[in-house]
Amino acid sequence: MNKTLRKIQIINGPNLNLLGQRETDVYGRISFDDFLLTLKQDFPKIDILYFQSNIEGEIIDCLQKSDKSVDGIILNAGGYTHTSVSIRDAVSAIQTKVVEVHISNLASRESFRHTSLITPVCKGSIIGFGLEAYALALQYFIRMKR
Amino acid sequence: MNKTLRKIQIINGPNLNLLGQRETDVYGRISFDDFLLTLKQDFPKIDILYFQSNIEGEIIDCLQKSDKSVDGIILNAGGYTHTSVSIRDAVSAIQTKVVEVHISNLASRESFRHTSLITPVCKGSIIGFGLEAYALALQYFIRMKR
Amino acid sequence: MNKTLRKIQIINGPNLNLLGQRETDVYGRISFDDFLLTLKQDFPKIDILYFQSNIEGEIIDCLQKSDKSVDGIILNAGGYTHTSVSIRDAVSAIQTKVVEVHISNLASRESFRHTSLITPVCKGSIIGFGLEAYALALQYFIRMKR
Amino acid sequence: MNKTLRKIQIINGPNLNLLGQRETDVYGRISFDDFLLTLKQDFPKIDILYFQSNIEGEIIDCLQKSDKSVDGIILNAGGYTHTSVSIRDAVSAIQTKVVEVHISNLASRESFRHTSLITPVCKGSIIGFGLEAYALALQYFIRMKR
Amino acid sequence: MNKTLRKIQIINGPNLNLLGQRETDVYGRISFDDFLLTLKQDFPKIDILYFQSNIEGEIIDCLQKSDKSVDGIILNAGGYTHTSVSIRDAVSAIQTKVVEVHISNLASRESFRHTSLITPVCKGSIIGFGLEAYALALQYFIRMKR
Amino acid sequence: MNKTLRKIQIINGPNLNLLGQRETDVYGRISFDDFLLTLKQDFPKIDILYFQSNIEGEIIDCLQKSDKSVDGIILNAGGYTHTSVSIRDAVSAIQTKVVEVHISNLASRESFRHTSLITPVCKGSIIGFGLEAYALALQYFIRMKR
Amino acid sequence: MNKTLRKIQIINGPNLNLLGQRETDVYGRISFDDFLLTLKQDFPKIDILYFQSNIEGEIIDCLQKSDKSVDGIILNAGGYTHTSVSIRDAVSAIQTKVVEVHISNLASRESFRHTSLITPVCKGSIIGFGLEAYALALQYFIRMKR
Amino acid sequence: MNKTLRKIQIINGPNLNLLGQRETDVYGRISFDDFLLTLKQDFPKIDILYFQSNIEGEIIDCLQKSDKSVDGIILNAGGYTHTSVSIRDAVSAIQTKVVEVHISNLASRESFRHTSLITPVCKGSIIGFGLEAYALALQYFIRMKR
Amino acid sequence: MNKTLRKIQIINGPNLNLLGQRETDVYGRISFDDFLLTLKQDFPKIDILYFQSNIEGEIIDCLQKSDKSVDGIILNAGGYTHTSVSIRDAVSAIQTKVVEVHISNLASRESFRHTSLITPVCKGSIIGFGLEAYALALQYFIRMKR
Amino acid sequence: MNKTLRKIQIINGPNLNLLGQRETDVYGRISFDDFLLTLKQDFPKIDILYFQSNIEGEIIDCLQKSDKSVDGIILNAGGYTHTSVSIRDAVSAIQTKVVEVHISNLASRESFRHTSLITPVCKGSIIGFGLEAYALALQYFIRMKR
Amino acid sequence: MNKTLRKIQIINGPNLNLLGQRETDVYGRISFDDFLLTLKQDFPKIDILYFQSNIEGEIIDCLQKSDKSVDGIILNAGGYTHTSVSIRDAVSAIQTKVVEVHISNLASRESFRHTSLITPVCKGSIIGFGLEAYALALQYFIRMKR
Amino acid sequence: MNKTLRKIQIINGPNLNLLGQRETDVYGRISFDDFLLTLKQDFPKIDILYFQSNIEGEIIDCLQKSDKSVDGIILNAGGYTHTSVSIRDAVSAIQTKVVEVHISNLASRESFRHTSLITPVCKGSIIGFGLEAYALALQYFIRMKR
Repeated sequence: MNKTLRKIQIINGPNLNLLGQRETDVYGRISFDDFLLTLKQDFPKIDILYFQSNIEGEIIDCLQKSDKSVDGIILNAGGYTHTSVSIRDAVSAIQTKVVEVHISNLASRESFRHTSLITPVCKGSIIGFGLEAYALALQYFIRMKR
Repeated sequence: MNKTLRKIQIINGPNLNLLGQRETDVYGRISFDDFLLTLKQDFPKIDILYFQSNIEGEIIDCLQKSDKSVDGIILNAGGYTHTSVSIRDAVSAIQTKVVEVHISNLASRESFRHTSLITPVCKGSIIGFGLEAYALALQYFIRMKR
Repeated sequence: MNKTLRKIQIINGPNLNLLGQRETDVYGRISFDDFLLTLKQDFPKIDILYFQSNIEGEIIDCLQKSDKSVDGIILNAGGYTHTSVSIRDAVSAIQTKVVEVHISNLASRESFRHTSLITPVCKGSIIGFGLEAYALALQYFIRMKR
Repeated sequence: MNKTLRKIQIINGPNLNLLGQRETDVYGRISFDDFLLTLKQDFPKIDILYFQSNIEGEIIDCLQKSDKSVDGIILNAGGYTHTSVSIRDAVSAIQTKVVEVHISNLASRESFRHTSLITPVCKGSIIGFGLEAYALALQYFIRMKR
Repeated sequence: MNKTLRKIQIINGPNLNLLGQRETDVYGRISFDDFLLTLKQDFPKIDILYFQSNIEGEIIDCLQKSDKSVDGIILNAGGYTHTSVSIRDAVSAIQTKVVEVHISNLASRESFRHTSLITPVCKGSIIGFGLEAYALALQYFIRMKR
Repeated sequence: MNKTLRKIQIINGPNLNLLGQRETDVYGRISFDDFLLTLKQDFPKIDILYFQSNIEGEIIDCLQKSDKSVDGIILNAGGYTHTSVSIRDAVSAIQTKVVEVHISNLASRESFRHTSLITPVCKGSIIGFGLEAYALALQYFIRMKR
Repeated sequence: MNKTLRKIQIINGPNLNLLGQRETDVYGRISFDDFLLTLKQDFPKIDILYFQSNIEGEIIDCLQKSDKSVDGIILNAGGYTHTSVSIRDAVSAIQTKVVEVHISNLASRESFRHTSLITPVCKGSIIGFGLEAYALALQYFIRMKR
Repeated sequence: MNKTLRKIQIINGPNLNLLGQRETDVYGRISFDDFLLTLKQDFPKIDILYFQSNIEGEIIDCLQKSDKSVDGIILNAGGYTHTSVSIRDAVSAIQTKVVEVHISNLASRESFRHTSLITPVCKGSIIGFGLEAYALALQYFIRMKR
Repeated sequence: MNKTLRKIQIINGPNLNLLGQRETDVYGRISFDDFLLTLKQDFPKIDILYFQSNIEGEIIDCLQKSDKSVDGIILNAGGYTHTSVSIRDAVSAIQTKVVEVHISNLASRESFRHTSLITPVCKGSIIGFGLEAYALALQYFIRMKR
Repeated sequence: MNKTLRKIQIINGPNLNLLGQRETDVYGRISFDDFLLTLKQDFPKIDILYFQSNIEGEIIDCLQKSDKSVDGIILNAGGYTHTSVSIRDAVSAIQTKVVEVHISNLASRESFRHTSLITPVCKGSIIGFGLEAYALALQYFIRMKR
Repeated sequence: MNKTLRKIQIINGPNLNLLGQRETDVYGRISFDDFLLTLKQDFPKIDILYFQSNIEGEIIDCLQKSDKSVDGIILNAGGYTHTSVSIRDAVSAIQTKVVEVHISNLASRESFRHTSLITPVCKGSIIGFGLEAYALALQYFIRMKR
Repeated sequence: MNKTLRKIQIINGPNLNLLGQRETDVYGRISFDDFLLTLKQDFPKIDILYFQSNIEGEIIDCLQKSDKSVDGIILNAGGYTHTSVSIRDAVSAIQTKVVEVHISNLASRESFRHTSLITPVCKGSIIGFGLEAYALALQYFIRMKR
């Protein structure tokens, strides 16, 4: 466990490219690109890779490709969280630890957002702290490395 | 509101490219391309843009890209109507008005077609008039412009 | 199909006589009588008949009596939409085409408003465009006549 | 029915490209590519075409394109089996017979895997024999040709 | 129990006035008025009273008024069968025996027709023999009188 | 239809051999054998055959064997009414008309007695008149013969 | 708030005209007319108006007409409590405060009586005190006036 | 029944000690202690006892101990209303009449607040009038004493 | 695994003895006896044993007796598929591999046919290919022997 | 109650004849015949009768025949526990006390084993102590005799 | 296992302190203290410890403290049986065997009493024999010691 | 926001005092007291307060008392997470931010652990990282202070 942690892959699902423009009362006014800069400053020792897609299968592709080439995956599957058996299967098929994050408190929104197909196969979930959830997930990977 | 209405984007989801060939008792014998010609003739003052994809994420891409560049969107999400939280999120994220249309009377078909995740975030829904639904949706945008 | 379309019967169910006074954030501030005048001006070639009742059985009576004497029926069954097997049976029993309209977007309101017993036996449904729904329904009968 | 059967299209859905690496207690240790070689040896008179994608819409594209150009389709839709109205619609829209196969016994796994949206529109289903299911499906097409 | 049975009240609910015109594959081609003549001929010793209304409350009124003035009630509540707690309460409140009849086999139709709120408070139910059900109900009152 | 009606097969399911001894508040104090004598006296022109078994499969055997050798079947499947897909399949497989009877008003008893798998495939159902139900069923076959 | 409270409209729904005759173990032996006299004696300063109907729509009519002409409404919608979206809409549409009362303890009766569609739009509910509920409702209006 | 009514026990469940501080839009700004003073002034002839606890079992203890030593109990079980079979059992086990009160209109809040386990075993329920509910419950005990 | 495969027991459940006579649109016009001859011709090297019963317990007896005396079991439990915990337990108790077959596509029939209690404890299931399903099941045992 | 207790009938349902061979991790390795010997040694003063059948109706027959000829019945209905309304009816119809036993802890197995149709009509149930449950049931009959 | 069994802890949940006073038709007229004396006389070699509390957490405390200091625990969690995940967790966390007892036949009472959260983690359950259940549970511990 | 963060209250619910002894495969082998020491070392600048109780109401008491006296609350309500409306109400009533933590991945355990009543009213949730969840929650409060 002595090797240096180098790479964490962040995967964002559908509509998260609109962050900062869309439903700003729920998601805040900062774009994910801007947030990513802050995040990299806060965690200078981590090589943060970023991927976003609106296409379910491309998220699966990315999970499969990231496997073993990165030290950890942070996944916000957006709307696919509640409907995608296939992303669940991909998370379950790979060996890299996946941490699920959500920006908003899903449990206080529409009932179809209360169930996550992905949670049971992730290492853990961090939900409802706004963008801060990504930082906590990184923190998890840092502390785990010790 | 005096500016001329120029562009309406029609977005068709999966399998609607087979219209006229497939289950003709449900969907009729005319292809959507042929119907589009008629539609353009009936509504000469509207610039009708057309996009069809079988891929959920490409429909989301198209919704995001159309936003603000068109004056209205007509969306028939096909089978994704009943399963896509992500398309719902996209409709809800953009500012252009979206009108939902369906060719068949979903309520008289299989029970999994009775629920639309998209309806609650659309301006309105026009369901069960055959292809005529697209014309009524255009009519809505025309009348609204007045 | 060369004969002139003359009569369309609009049937409004319970509490729609309060339109313009009641829950104006949901239903708007215009009374249905005032709206009817506008509608008649917009569609001068159609003879629009209007009936409103709070009594379920009177709506059934009106559906039965209108059958064959009018060229089309526009039905907003109000609260009975969700509970009346009997109005459904009446719509299904007659031969005149019935178009269902609703002023508000039922799918974004209480869950007991999400199911319509009437939709499966109507020609089609127009939901969530405000009073404009009635105009679109008339438009449907005009276009169909061609 | 005297013409030679030439082509059977196998379509594999998401994560089946990981076969042999992933959850080997459920899915076994052989990769699908290796299995395909065996299959071709066992059925020398059949021209077996193979397509895999993680993207729901590409599976729909493939179903549509295969229609009429092949003599039969073997479909393992993976995780989309349980969620895709759109793949169901594609199977139902085309005229080539589709046989559904699954490697594992879905009925003895998580409850969300117990329902297949695709079964009702397929010719038949072969479930729970491991990779042998593909061989039995081919066998079906051979016997049917007689 | 030696007094002569004189009066049986038949109460028909909504849309049964359309019998013979409507959905003739389900309900047959004979009108209820014509059937009533036959019924009276078949049961000359019974004074058959007939009431039909589309209005739920008028059916309740009739049940209340018939109580004690007739020797038995035959009730086909039509679509109110499945939704009317109030007709159930009326049947339960009066003392005259009520026999429930239905012309069609409700159990083989839409699921919302599978539950009758009225059955538990009736003497018995006769369902699915066509108009013959009314004759069997009369037969019941005749045999009971012995 | 001029031939004389000769044979009606009554089939009673499990525990109906205990009639008159068991739960007499629900089922009355008369045994079925005694009742059968009365029934034969009341309907002297009908040859009434009687079969009772506690074994689901023997009821199926009897239904299959009766088919075509009798002019009608009266079936009280007792507890199997609510659980037996197989008796339903047998009723549906044969061509002789089957009338379902029940002695008690099932709808006012435990909820698992509210659903009958058999009703949808029977000619009709007579429920809740006590043993009189069998007489009404015979009456149906007599009247139908006319 | 200094003006004298003059009028309270009591509205009773279906079958409450039978009070005192019907199911006296549940509802007691006193008729509502007799009770009304007592009530008027107990509350001499209130002008109590009374309306009863078995017809759903007439209850809606009465709610609409009472609005603003009375100082408060006491509503016992009887069996419509559990089924009438339309009465709910009427209560919600008017501005006069409505207090819901029920004579019996609905929660200890059949399960279809456990849900009231009307409760959420009333000022409050008083349930299960027998006829005394009406007196408590009047008491509420008296105390509120202070 | 001539003896003077002396003691009424009010029992308040969890978080009701925060009244006036917490969610003041739902529960108002007055503390229960202040309200109690007003209540005692309004009902000078009643000896009002007050107990509040956040602990489910202490509420049961209090119910058991109050039995027979007081003339009536007013119970607002707060959040335990919806989850406590044990408080229900205590209410049902004792002989003193218990009146259930709730400050807010539970039926218009989250769905888990729509069911009360306690209602079916109480004398009656008063729901949704704010703190006034306690006064109406006292009024009930006063009127009952007459 | 070098020993010759000799015996496969086919077990057919209720009503399958009527094959060819009953519901021929669903099950075809060939009797199972005739089909069995064809099957034996197609698989000359297999000793095919055949048992049919309408009695649930006899199917269990047969499963228990076949265990170890045959090399494989093909089970079509007919209507018991959906209701028999006991047949499931028998399949699960024995050691011989059981393959489940169904002639029709159960998933496209009534909803009570969508669940098989037996599937989770079988080696695999072959559903919806008509009688061909039995041949594919035999094929499975042949291929497995290799 | 002074007469000597002589006979207790044990009735075992389907697959319990396989005890000791089948799923030994759940049911243990001892056969019921061997256990019966031990049981008779432990309870020398009781005449223990034993019956096992895989056939539902034969269990009903045995319950009916045992009634009054034995002093108590111990019933393990196996898989029929969860599906047999008819066995329930038989238990309820007879007068001898029936004690329900189960070897395994049904509540920790598949959900379809969580409901027993038989429990509500038995004297009591002893579940989850392995074969010891039979001894406790005998113990009950011994202690009751005192 | 040669050591003498000395201590069995009985834990009774809420309202069981009222035994003999409360709902005597369900629970009998003997108090638990009196019964305990009898029990101690019947089982002189066992040191029976007794604890009762209305407070969920105190039952958990007692379970935790008893662990290892006693040879067995008999638990009647009363109303907490159906609602307490926490007592379940405590039973599951400790190593001493816990036997669940209930005095009444829960399965024949209200539906919310049909589910026990505690059963799946107990050694076994004894339900519906009245107070005798405690004796049978002691019997189990005696026999197990052998 | 420049003031020093001083106090964070950790509240642990039922059975968490057994950590390290109980179900060590799920919860690990370290006791919470030991873990607390490590936590204090890792976060020297935070004053960590600790409270554990098995009693629901004491957790509510602690939440109420902590309000405003601490800068943040970390709550692991254990089994009460899934059943306590009252703890939810307490969290919602206070103003201090509450972070919900769980040691195990609830979503992959029994279904009754999938719903948290508390999540919707917390700032956020951290689930499934083992004891590390507490550290991440502290981290959240540290980062938020900046």
